[in-house]
Amino acid sequence: MIRDALKNEFQKIVGKDNVMTEAAELHAYSYDSAVLDQAQPAVVVRPENSESLGKVVKLCNENGLKLTVRGAGTNLSGGTIPHPGGVVCLTTALDKVLEINEEDLYAVVQPGVVTAKFAAQVAAKGLLYPPDPGSQAVSTLGGNVAENAGGLRALKYGVTKDYVMGVDFFDVNGELVASGGKTVKCVTGYNLAGLMIASEGTLGVFEKIILKLVPPPAAYKSMMAVFPDMMDASRAVAAIIANKIVPATLEFMDNFTIRTIENFRKAGLPLDAAAMLLIEVDGHQAQVEDDAAKVEAICKEHKAVSVRVAKDDAERNAVWQARRDALPALARVRPTTVLEDATVPRSKIPAMMEALGRIAKKYDLTIGTFGHAGDGNLHPTILTDKRDQQEWHRVEAAIDAIFEEALALGGTLSGEHGIGLAKAKYMKNEYGVGAINYSRRMKSVLDPNNILNPGKILGPLLA
Amino acid sequence: MIRDALKNEFQKIVGKDNVMTEAAELHAYSYDSAVLDQAQPAVVVRPENSESLGKVVKLCNENGLKLTVRGAGTNLSGGTIPHPGGVVCLTTALDKVLEINEEDLYAVVQPGVVTAKFAAQVAAKGLLYPPDPGSQAVSTLGGNVAENAGGLRALKYGVTKDYVMGVDFFDVNGELVASGGKTVKCVTGYNLAGLMIASEGTLGVFEKIILKLVPPPAAYKSMMAVFPDMMDASRAVAAIIANKIVPATLEFMDNFTIRTIENFRKAGLPLDAAAMLLIEVDGHQAQVEDDAAKVEAICKEHKAVSVRVAKDDAERNAVWQARRDALPALARVRPTTVLEDATVPRSKIPAMMEALGRIAKKYDLTIGTFGHAGDGNLHPTILTDKRDQQEWHRVEAAIDAIFEEALALGGTLSGEHGIGLAKAKYMKNEYGVGAINYSRRMKSVLDPNNILNPGKILGPLLA
Repeated sequence: MIRDALKNEFQKIVGKDNVMTEAAELHAYSYDSAVLDQAQPAVVVRPENSESLGKVVKLCNENGLKLTVRGAGTNLSGGTIPHPGGVVCLTTALDKVLEINEEDLYAVVQPGVVTAKFAAQVAAKGLLYPPDPGSQAVSTLGGNVAENAGGLRALKYGVTKDYVMGVDFFDVNGELVASGGKTVKCVTGYNLAGLMIASEGTLGVFEKIILKLVPPPAAYKSMMAVFPDMMDASRAVAAIIANKIVPATLEFMDNFTIRTIENFRKAGLPLDAAAMLLIEVDGHQAQVEDDAAKVEAICKEHKAVSVRVAKDDAERNAVWQARRDALPALARVRPTTVLEDATVPRSKIPAMMEALGRIAKKYDLTIGTFGHAGDGNLHPTILTDKRDQQEWHRVEAAIDAIFEEALALGGTLSGEHGIGLAKAKYMKNEYGVGAINYSRRMKSVLDPNNILNPGKILGPLLA
Repeated sequence: MIRDALKNEFQKIVGKDNVMTEAAELHAYSYDSAVLDQAQPAVVVRPENSESLGKVVKLCNENGLKLTVRGAGTNLSGGTIPHPGGVVCLTTALDKVLEINEEDLYAVVQPGVVTAKFAAQVAAKGLLYPPDPGSQAVSTLGGNVAENAGGLRALKYGVTKDYVMGVDFFDVNGELVASGGKTVKCVTGYNLAGLMIASEGTLGVFEKIILKLVPPPAAYKSMMAVFPDMMDASRAVAAIIANKIVPATLEFMDNFTIRTIENFRKAGLPLDAAAMLLIEVDGHQAQVEDDAAKVEAICKEHKAVSVRVAKDDAERNAVWQARRDALPALARVRPTTVLEDATVPRSKIPAMMEALGRIAKKYDLTIGTFGHAGDGNLHPTILTDKRDQQEWHRVEAAIDAIFEEALALGGTLSGEHGIGLAKAKYMKNEYGVGAINYSRRMKSVLDPNNILNPGKILGPLLA
């Protein structure tokens, strides 16, 4: 429940229609895409301009109201699950592309712009915004920056971080902080834009983002390679990179995922394949030809039984539709889908695949694995039912084991989904206490009342 | 003067030979490459391993000793000028390349590794570390990260920031903080590695750095285009980018710089050229051919009188030797060389060139301009004599005018040289007070005694 006086204050800032307190509305913003407990906010507000956004932040801080900023809520680590009784601030009305600069290859956007819509506007100008997180059709650019979202093209083009040139954000007092800029080189002041990336709404509230654009590749070629042995497929991934080829995309799917996709949409996938690689190379036409030929040869050396090269855009779309189907298809198998993203150095993919097999067996679980093999970022997906307590305990033990294995292989807890609420307790296993102490000190002074998305990344703080 | 007891403590940590307090030694570390007043430290220490480095930091903090970490001292904004009576900590003995991983395309280095030596070791393994700051022959990787050093290849390959995957650093208490990692994708915890980049030694002391490596281009081609009109040359730069060509390097030189280089080393440069562009395109052989042809055509469209394409490595070296000669040649003309790096969006290069001409005339100064035109990062170089007070006042006024112009064009105070002591007072002109307040709050909690390279970036603090 929120006091009437405060509700009134919010209404003054964002307008009556943009303050929600009905039970159904509060429920709609009590969860995100992570498999975690819901938490109901006391109020949901939707500012329509920057000025209101800053005032919302200030009002929350002055009244000790916990504030969670939310784009599309596609977060997979609980980063957009609000504090119980707190405030959810929607960025959906802050959805303007303020500038696309073709001469200087940058764009300025508000945080609520939808990723895919932005990418399409950029493409219409003959340019490319490469980051393509799985949820791009609905996710927002603000959320992408707050989580440092990855995607399929990260192998060659990098992740959201690599495209953030500047972020203007409100500090917890509602004061506007500018950082970065529109120049390719900029070393003026602390890299606060860099600090905002992956900070999950805990250090500031984004007002405006400057993103880098690049010329699109002149040509591309997609391929699908089928392997009778999963270890051969994962060794082929390592061999492609070791041969100094950098595909735009290099995706992996295990047999369980292949069969589940085929069951979901009859696409003619080889049901008996132990694993498939989906690969796209891009660049200058001649380079594409050379790279495609080399990739094909490497796959065959690693005992691929077939390598199909897409002959036209329709065939190319079929390849990538299969990949896009992976998660929705797997998600239909059991009531609960736990999508993990522990990540390892790419050469450790074969070892990680072996470990995932061992873990599935040990805990008697169904794990379908697919993902961005080219950058070591697999998505082992545990299909389960959270209501079955016994099985859920085994799921939790398996997740612990997956993290332990990834760290032992020199990897990380999260490649692209974030820490949020889900992985905060594992942080010290990766970095020890030094990084946590340093981060907590920083948070304590930048958000002394701990109102900015509390509990995320650092776990519960005392404030 | 340092108290004997403290000197003794330092000797216990780093060994007797690694503690310097002689006048000549202190003098040697009282300045860097910026045109600023010297400041003498009380002691210079040189730890030979990580453990000692951490202990030095701790000892300084416990005793309120101001600490400036120094690599090669090539800093151009006073970032390595110590606090008077403070401690200089040399990283020159922390010079080990700990790992070059060819499978996973990363390297782990200590902060004192020399940039060019590292690049050569990487090249020997058939890989590329792209950042190539002007001082690379002597500069250290720790310094490069602390300053986010740029270089000639930034246009296509980015700057140091784009190659930092992780930084382990000591906080002010001497506690080790880990951040980032060896995976291409990593969103575990705050982007502390990102925060360290360009922080100029004010937020932590680097222990170890993880750097990204890339496969080298298969082919390259260098060109030199001569223009009778400077504005045509700068328009050609904008046109190359607008045509979606991304050269590895795209450098500019004005007539004064050309004549000064020719005077320095008879290289056969065209003395009557108003301006020259030095360009290198790289990548797949076919792409190089196409890009080179397009660049040549664009230069000719913009009234270049000649475009010479280097036929072999000797001719290529001659092109880049001329560029490397620019600063040493200019530096010989007058006793004092002020090398600026205010940076604008690339399409604003013509406007910036015009402004520089106006400023030189107004303040009756000799300004030679060269630099990284492709990324908007020019180096207007004022040739003067600091002992001539009247002229020096005009220089200071001209610098103010250059910054004002760059900011008015949507640019930034510093593209790659850093803020240091030199530009701290201009910070608020670019970002306003919000960013400065936020940064000062952060600094106040991460370095409560203000011992880490005080005065840099944020100016004098109260602590």
